[in-house]
Amino acid sequence: MIALDWGTTRARAFLIGEDGTVLDKRSADRGIQSVPAGGFPAAFEAIAGDLRRANPEAAILLAGMVGSRNGWIEAPYVACPASPAEIAAAGLRVTLDDGTAATIVPGMSCDEGAFDVMRGEETLVVGLGLGDGIACLPGTHSKWAQVEGGRITRFASFMTGEVYGLLREHSILSRLAEEPAGEDAAEGARRGIAAAARPGGLLNAAFAARSEVLAGRMSGGAVGPYLSSLLVAQEIAAARAMFGGLENLHLVADGVLAQSYGRALAAAGLDHDLVTPEAAFVAGVARLAADLPA
Amino acid sequence: MIALDWGTTRARAFLIGEDGTVLDKRSADRGIQSVPAGGFPAAFEAIAGDLRRANPEAAILLAGMVGSRNGWIEAPYVACPASPAEIAAAGLRVTLDDGTAATIVPGMSCDEGAFDVMRGEETLVVGLGLGDGIACLPGTHSKWAQVEGGRITRFASFMTGEVYGLLREHSILSRLAEEPAGEDAAEGARRGIAAAARPGGLLNAAFAARSEVLAGRMSGGAVGPYLSSLLVAQEIAAARAMFGGLENLHLVADGVLAQSYGRALAAAGLDHDLVTPEAAFVAGVARLAADLPA
Repeated sequence: MIALDWGTTRARAFLIGEDGTVLDKRSADRGIQSVPAGGFPAAFEAIAGDLRRANPEAAILLAGMVGSRNGWIEAPYVACPASPAEIAAAGLRVTLDDGTAATIVPGMSCDEGAFDVMRGEETLVVGLGLGDGIACLPGTHSKWAQVEGGRITRFASFMTGEVYGLLREHSILSRLAEEPAGEDAAEGARRGIAAAARPGGLLNAAFAARSEVLAGRMSGGAVGPYLSSLLVAQEIAAARAMFGGLENLHLVADGVLAQSYGRALAAAGLDHDLVTPEAAFVAGVARLAADLPA
Repeated sequence: MIALDWGTTRARAFLIGEDGTVLDKRSADRGIQSVPAGGFPAAFEAIAGDLRRANPEAAILLAGMVGSRNGWIEAPYVACPASPAEIAAAGLRVTLDDGTAATIVPGMSCDEGAFDVMRGEETLVVGLGLGDGIACLPGTHSKWAQVEGGRITRFASFMTGEVYGLLREHSILSRLAEEPAGEDAAEGARRGIAAAARPGGLLNAAFAARSEVLAGRMSGGAVGPYLSSLLVAQEIAAARAMFGGLENLHLVADGVLAQSYGRALAAAGLDHDLVTPEAAFVAGVARLAADLPA
């Protein structure tokens, strides 16, 4: 099969064999925001046309923001709870330049008083193959999802990455923040995780970065790591309040996010399995493709 | 006496009679950031020189950021707990152009694991004349202070106003937010206060504004009031976690801040007295002047 993880700013294409191994892959700066209305068949051709021609029998799955209002076609959200088969059944068919079909994976919605949505993350959660468990997918807008009996039953979004950027780059703290050096990263992380446990919450703990630096008790290089760890630890605490014990927890991350979330989860006394986003995506599209209606 | 509430961007001068009534007042765009090093005697002359010449015997008190590192002279923070007399005793003498003296009110610091500071708010808290109670002073960086036995024993800062501005103007939510119209303000406030009580915390509830608007369940005009009320309600909940029952609570605010905090306090089941910042300032400098060393 050919699968595209087609986001807002970037598209990644995978050629996946019958046994689920990745045979070829590529990445392109052809996110949906760079594609004009009506330009999606041509964009697909530019991103993965050669993969398509070399594998004319392969099923084609498109996941992520390609199914949003500003994408190829809007794929309505599938409401929680939903199984992989139910998500696949709601896939939308689109037609490529050569007249063959591809399927857009829909996003999901969740409504527990507040409405919440995701597009793309549902595929990664499916890829974890969980019977019962929790998935944590860090990012600009992190997602946590609960799986029960093989169905995604609930999920929630957190603006963690975006709020970090706002505080680090645009708040009064940005003037004090410096590039981390020496022990700054470790010191900031330790302080941020400790601050998240204090009763004053984010609005109080963020201000403390300023007063601690002005008082000479924390280095400017620790400000960024402090804020990052503070926010991640608060996201984890909030997820615990929403989802309970966080048993059988799976972190879908790599790089610095895997490090910072791993450290904060350990500090919270939580065990987790680590899966890369690519591995979760590949397993997810393989599972969804198997469930596609013939 | 002559008292200046001398902040970062603005200075307000008051001529206060023996009985504590305001005889004259004025406001000037002569905050400390507009004053060059060494220029403070001349700036005082420009702001309040005529009040000074007309009342040559009046004591002069300067409060606020004028005592900061970038102000006239740095007045070291007085550590909690401190009484009005102890704050007054730590006042710093400076000399005006005509050789007479004025006193700069110092700021205060608090250290309960995290260091915290305030400059100017201590004067307003003193002005409440509390034996035992809690003061809430909303703003860009809101302050809550506890008074026990007439002394300011603890306080805490919250970045509420600044985070509101970041989310409203610079986040992904800013594209969805519109000017409130009709019932938007009331609807947003109701939703924001309700959202603050949910377990997902600020990072989750802020994202909900986006998905609720995209789903057509909330108007764009309600986004600003939603965020404001969400943040204020979370500040109040955090203050309750830090300071306990919030008995004998005094809100120092006017205008829209008095309205939004008053509404959120009522929703939290908290009674409060409302005092304007000007009334609290005038009473505070009068009390501190009475305690000044001869």
